[in-house]
Amino acid sequence: MKRLLIRNVAVLIVPEQDECRVDNAQDIHIQDDQITAIAPTTPAQVEAEVEVEVEVEVIDGTGLVAVPGLINSHTHSPMVMMRGAAEDLSIEDWFNQRIWPMEVNLTPERVRVGARLACAEMLLAGVTTFVDHYFHADQIAAAAVESGIRADLAPTYFSSEGKAGIDAAVDTTRELSRLHPRITASLGPHATYTVTDEDLKRTADIARAEGFRIHLHAAETDDQTQASLDNHGITPIQVLDHTGVLDAGALIAHGCGIRESDLPILERYADRTTVASCPKVYLKLAMGEVTPIKALRSAGVRVGIGTDGAAVHNTLDVWEAIRMVALTQKQREHDAEWMTLSDTLRLATRGSAAAAGLADHIGTLEPGRQADIALVDLSAPHNQPVHDPRAALVYSVRASDVVTVLVAGKVVVRNRHLTTVDLAEVLADAKSLAHTLVDLSTGGTIQHYNP
Amino acid sequence: MKRLLIRNVAVLIVPEQDECRVDNAQDIHIQDDQITAIAPTTPAQVEAEVEVEVEVEVIDGTGLVAVPGLINSHTHSPMVMMRGAAEDLSIEDWFNQRIWPMEVNLTPERVRVGARLACAEMLLAGVTTFVDHYFHADQIAAAAVESGIRADLAPTYFSSEGKAGIDAAVDTTRELSRLHPRITASLGPHATYTVTDEDLKRTADIARAEGFRIHLHAAETDDQTQASLDNHGITPIQVLDHTGVLDAGALIAHGCGIRESDLPILERYADRTTVASCPKVYLKLAMGEVTPIKALRSAGVRVGIGTDGAAVHNTLDVWEAIRMVALTQKQREHDAEWMTLSDTLRLATRGSAAAAGLADHIGTLEPGRQADIALVDLSAPHNQPVHDPRAALVYSVRASDVVTVLVAGKVVVRNRHLTTVDLAEVLADAKSLAHTLVDLSTGGTIQHYNP
Repeated sequence: MKRLLIRNVAVLIVPEQDECRVDNAQDIHIQDDQITAIAPTTPAQVEAEVEVEVEVEVIDGTGLVAVPGLINSHTHSPMVMMRGAAEDLSIEDWFNQRIWPMEVNLTPERVRVGARLACAEMLLAGVTTFVDHYFHADQIAAAAVESGIRADLAPTYFSSEGKAGIDAAVDTTRELSRLHPRITASLGPHATYTVTDEDLKRTADIARAEGFRIHLHAAETDDQTQASLDNHGITPIQVLDHTGVLDAGALIAHGCGIRESDLPILERYADRTTVASCPKVYLKLAMGEVTPIKALRSAGVRVGIGTDGAAVHNTLDVWEAIRMVALTQKQREHDAEWMTLSDTLRLATRGSAAAAGLADHIGTLEPGRQADIALVDLSAPHNQPVHDPRAALVYSVRASDVVTVLVAGKVVVRNRHLTTVDLAEVLADAKSLAHTLVDLSTGGTIQHYNP
Repeated sequence: MKRLLIRNVAVLIVPEQDECRVDNAQDIHIQDDQITAIAPTTPAQVEAEVEVEVEVEVIDGTGLVAVPGLINSHTHSPMVMMRGAAEDLSIEDWFNQRIWPMEVNLTPERVRVGARLACAEMLLAGVTTFVDHYFHADQIAAAAVESGIRADLAPTYFSSEGKAGIDAAVDTTRELSRLHPRITASLGPHATYTVTDEDLKRTADIARAEGFRIHLHAAETDDQTQASLDNHGITPIQVLDHTGVLDAGALIAHGCGIRESDLPILERYADRTTVASCPKVYLKLAMGEVTPIKALRSAGVRVGIGTDGAAVHNTLDVWEAIRMVALTQKQREHDAEWMTLSDTLRLATRGSAAAAGLADHIGTLEPGRQADIALVDLSAPHNQPVHDPRAALVYSVRASDVVTVLVAGKVVVRNRHLTTVDLAEVLADAKSLAHTLVDLSTGGTIQHYNP
């Protein structure tokens, strides 16, 4: 039994409803992978306790704010290897001229190297869980296990890969779901426009039979929704309905093209549907809309926050994604009083935990939850003075303000340094392989974007 | 004569037209306050030179990118003291319930303390110039001089202050313009809706007679433009035209409410008109529009990038503002191929230099320009691998990646530490006075928002 105590720390409390708050001068008690108690700091007691229980590791939280470890609720982590290699392009050209031709170059080793870099970037920024959708997911799992981060992994597949390809991806989901306590796995059909209804139905059957969730792209833009209506007479959300994907339980990436008529459908499956919003991407690709979070919340659908892949988001910085959600939602609804600090922090914590399929395990700091914690230092000039620490967390904090990070009770970042992997080696490996990922000379492509 | 050499550094080159580029392995030669030469690194020569000229200070730029010191082209720097104290409010409530009642509490000391904090925040982030609009501007000037930053300062006035108040503000402009080589001054009528046409005319006359520019808020939102049309039959830009403000030369803050019919007017004065865009604020206050930069550029009007005050922007992080301009402009024009990396970097450098009234002195790294330089380290995982350093500067860099900063040839930040002021003291002063700024118990307000 391993015990750990974070002493004298401010704690972000995120209730299901109502305002978030920050409680000062708290002790967070941790046993093995879980939080066992959070209570006001009482120095005398603590010292007595430490005396009798010598194995308690104590982290001084003085001057720091403890927040639930951030959750990246939709990403393609190894795409950090293409960071900055596909700029100023329409969504069509981004897919067809760059990303899908580049992905011809994917190998297990390159995915592994990219995933290690991604895990390093995320952990140093206080991201303790990521929800991934990519190829060679076994390699991503290995990087996650090694680095100490938590992950839900969906091995990506297209119908163009044929039955053998899909079966292999499904088998990877099965294997990863048994791999490690910090790893969960989902089924990963790419999207409603790259996977046939028949394959989606088969996926939904497997999901129901074996208890998996389905993580996929749908209604990413309103153009996609319109194309679906033009070509098939129904919206992407209706496709998810009639193929059984929603019944099985889905994490829908983006959903910017969700129409009002889709909401009653989603409401029916609200207990098992989540949507991940990654707004930096929607602006950068000029997609025209952002996720209709207000309507989704009214329909009872939980919403999380993600970065998408760094080939378009350029970072895996969830702080940045959180801020973009607050800003773009106020803009979208023409209402500066909507998506308040509390709304935003709730999405980033409880919402993203639901999107990760871990609503009961992570996302808040309370006894019984996993000890996934980021300690944030708000003392630098860009956060000072702190009239409201919640405002600092949403609107002024930088990823570089994260000093210490725990996942499942283990310190994975201490004083801004990774404890689990050799960062210099991770960076050197990424640098040496970077050119191989963006090489377009080989020709070919893994897919064509024409939703 | 003081000589300084930044050796073996990558240099961001921003041409007037065409693509920006980053030239690797350059030496930047600096003499006193100016750049004298930029040339490929030739180790042998350099050592010979150092030998004969022992007073050359050498900064090793290996692995770093030199960018023109960032310019915050519109801010109210002392408002850092209200950071996080006015969240989730409509623009009306933000002004009328919080900010203008809080500003009853302004004193010279509190403004000075706030400005010192603001200068510290900006310098550490690589911001070497700020264009300010606020009260007690003499105190802001003192903080700027002390900290080593460059500033253009416009003492704010309302018509409600009466002739004596306005005269005092104008006198401050005159005094500050003679204060220090790094300080310039502009006239600071608050806005078209808080300063009468008569006072704007008088301001324009002084500006023309004495060679000052006029920095003011105008057409901040389309609602303001509509209100101006409803109440006066003309747009705010037409007000600036017929009062002579545009003829005198204006820096217009925001301009989100600029109508198509305003563009021919602005085009006539394009040689002396600039607009500062601060998009984080437009989203946060749900203002409905962002600055129509594409139309303004087509009319020949130069546009800069700013943060506005931290009471709404929450940071003075110009990197964040640059990124928000790129993202929101792509969104606004429904065109992911517009506001390219090069467009964005040009706005942030040459555009903002023009907004600061210093187009010939700062904003690019070339011989004859002021040596205002930020050295940026892109080696951290969130920037790696670097397929395109311009993409890193726009979309992944953090303010914390700035390691060394020079203003007018003087090192003001070295290895992420300020060389000019005692940061601990600055922070302690701000902390001790913070509560006095946000005290609403005194009652009263300095103005009422009803454009």
